[in-house]
Amino acid sequence: MTMEQYSSISLDMGGGGQKSSELISDIRKIIKDVGKWKNTGDDGAIFKIPRNAGNLIFTTDAFIIDPIFFPGGDIGKIAMCGTINDLSVMGARPIGISLSIVIEEGFPRDDLMKILRSINKVSQESGVPVVTGDTKVTEKGKIDKIEITTSGVGLAQNVIQNNGVEPGDLIIASGDLGEHTIALLAKRFNYQTKIKSDSKALDKEIEKVGGYLNACKDPTRGGLAANLSEMAEKSKVKIVLNERDLPYKKEVKAVTELLGLDVFSLASEGRFLASVSPKNAQKALKILKTFNREAKIIGKAQKAKNKQEIGVYFETELGGSRKIESPRGKLIPRIC
Amino acid sequence: MTMEQYSSISLDMGGGGQKSSELISDIRKIIKDVGKWKNTGDDGAIFKIPRNAGNLIFTTDAFIIDPIFFPGGDIGKIAMCGTINDLSVMGARPIGISLSIVIEEGFPRDDLMKILRSINKVSQESGVPVVTGDTKVTEKGKIDKIEITTSGVGLAQNVIQNNGVEPGDLIIASGDLGEHTIALLAKRFNYQTKIKSDSKALDKEIEKVGGYLNACKDPTRGGLAANLSEMAEKSKVKIVLNERDLPYKKEVKAVTELLGLDVFSLASEGRFLASVSPKNAQKALKILKTFNREAKIIGKAQKAKNKQEIGVYFETELGGSRKIESPRGKLIPRIC
Repeated sequence: MTMEQYSSISLDMGGGGQKSSELISDIRKIIKDVGKWKNTGDDGAIFKIPRNAGNLIFTTDAFIIDPIFFPGGDIGKIAMCGTINDLSVMGARPIGISLSIVIEEGFPRDDLMKILRSINKVSQESGVPVVTGDTKVTEKGKIDKIEITTSGVGLAQNVIQNNGVEPGDLIIASGDLGEHTIALLAKRFNYQTKIKSDSKALDKEIEKVGGYLNACKDPTRGGLAANLSEMAEKSKVKIVLNERDLPYKKEVKAVTELLGLDVFSLASEGRFLASVSPKNAQKALKILKTFNREAKIIGKAQKAKNKQEIGVYFETELGGSRKIESPRGKLIPRIC
Repeated sequence: MTMEQYSSISLDMGGGGQKSSELISDIRKIIKDVGKWKNTGDDGAIFKIPRNAGNLIFTTDAFIIDPIFFPGGDIGKIAMCGTINDLSVMGARPIGISLSIVIEEGFPRDDLMKILRSINKVSQESGVPVVTGDTKVTEKGKIDKIEITTSGVGLAQNVIQNNGVEPGDLIIASGDLGEHTIALLAKRFNYQTKIKSDSKALDKEIEKVGGYLNACKDPTRGGLAANLSEMAEKSKVKIVLNERDLPYKKEVKAVTELLGLDVFSLASEGRFLASVSPKNAQKALKILKTFNREAKIIGKAQKAKNKQEIGVYFETELGGSRKIESPRGKLIPRIC
């Protein structure tokens, strides 16, 4: 059987027999080896560990989203970028990604190929190989189209952790935030906007500035609100953001207000928030601006006077201040 | 919010906000750290790599099964064992598992807790920690109850690969096969049988005999037919099994005949097939029998005279011979 002989995925492609091997071999035709990685065809991927490799970082992410295609990306792109980014924000060089796909019977072959090509594109551009995987096919109605889980392994000499924010540190956003959520909302509700998902792999920019970062996190699910709050809590500091320096585009703010959402909860899939000591902030910013002109300093970490003060605060130009709370409820749509 | 305050999973527990943190913290209450692993609470797990660690092995598996509870196990147990076993059959010592769970809104809390307790039990017994994870909640109907993807990392000084079968090697089954499929079929069709799933972690037994094995594979999806055929093809040998030594219980054979299935395609979730040189076979077998009395030599590898002869053959006591083909079609039910 060749790729030309089917137009949609059938149950027998998930059975573990010859048709499964053929589907997997079709997947392998699109997702090519990259870098030093060599596929031995075993159940697991094999890496010779270099001497003094430092630390192994291991992470995972599940993606079941609606829509699966959207302006600026698709489920395959965000699955790859999401896992590469989770490794990168910890200061690790990603060495391999595992790709587990659960597909609903009847899913169009063309859509699967499009998703696989996206995955391959991220892999080729970032140089991070897909090294192992699993592909299952379920009966109709047992899954909504497709679910992708990516896990990743990376090596880090110096691990960047969420609890590394120091009082006095400046907080840098690597670019404007929230465009991923807005692009998905627009697509889902047929709303006209030029905003595209910000989905992208962050490995290259973090590799360049990694040495300057005391803490780093990508504001995906839960946005700045959830992720910067987590950094503040783990580091036991107060982080203050100024109204003037907020990393959100006018159009993003407008759509957010229109829909009654909290701008701080919008997710990005190709941005990070980092804490940098004042002496390194300008150096880091200069490098980051070569990747994204919107990179900027958005706030400052302070010593928390007491436990209650720990968290993220937003100060208006008129002198008002309020705590940015981690979002409590459900975020619509499921965007990461 | 404590665990006592909800009886089923709600959408807002997957939003990335406070309710997500609370669900994740509930999960962490059940799944305890084990071994030397220490959870830093970062997005990825951190392992200090020992000097001369050898090779890193990395693998993944997706589980969406029906039923999710069955005699001898549940979806949590087979997800954990499946990934531990994929590392073990390659000669690796598993060091960490990632646990990604996609849950349907309304899924009963009691069922989730039961699955998590199974996961924890395997983790505690095998000493392999769950080190990182992701939990998503989907709207009703977007997934059938629950889907689990586990990935695993392990370290191996000497990697065992599928292409290692040598002509002259004896083929050992670590126990009788196929009981996992029969247990699930019985549960699904309300058929009375004493057969339980063979689901179990193989790390301890493979650690003891690993040095003797030239090749090793666990016959999960596709059973002996798919998995031993793969070993034969990759090693370019002919493997001959004798009718008298087949590793299947009478009751398994009976149910299989009743349902018109191919016994060689039945899956196991706690067994392995290994290729061992004649001088080591009895030593390996003696050790394996201390774990499972049913462990036995089931066949022999020979030099293939030509490309067509490569594969697995079954010889009857009356002198007949036929090739065991990798299953082509769908296997009902989805059992791994």
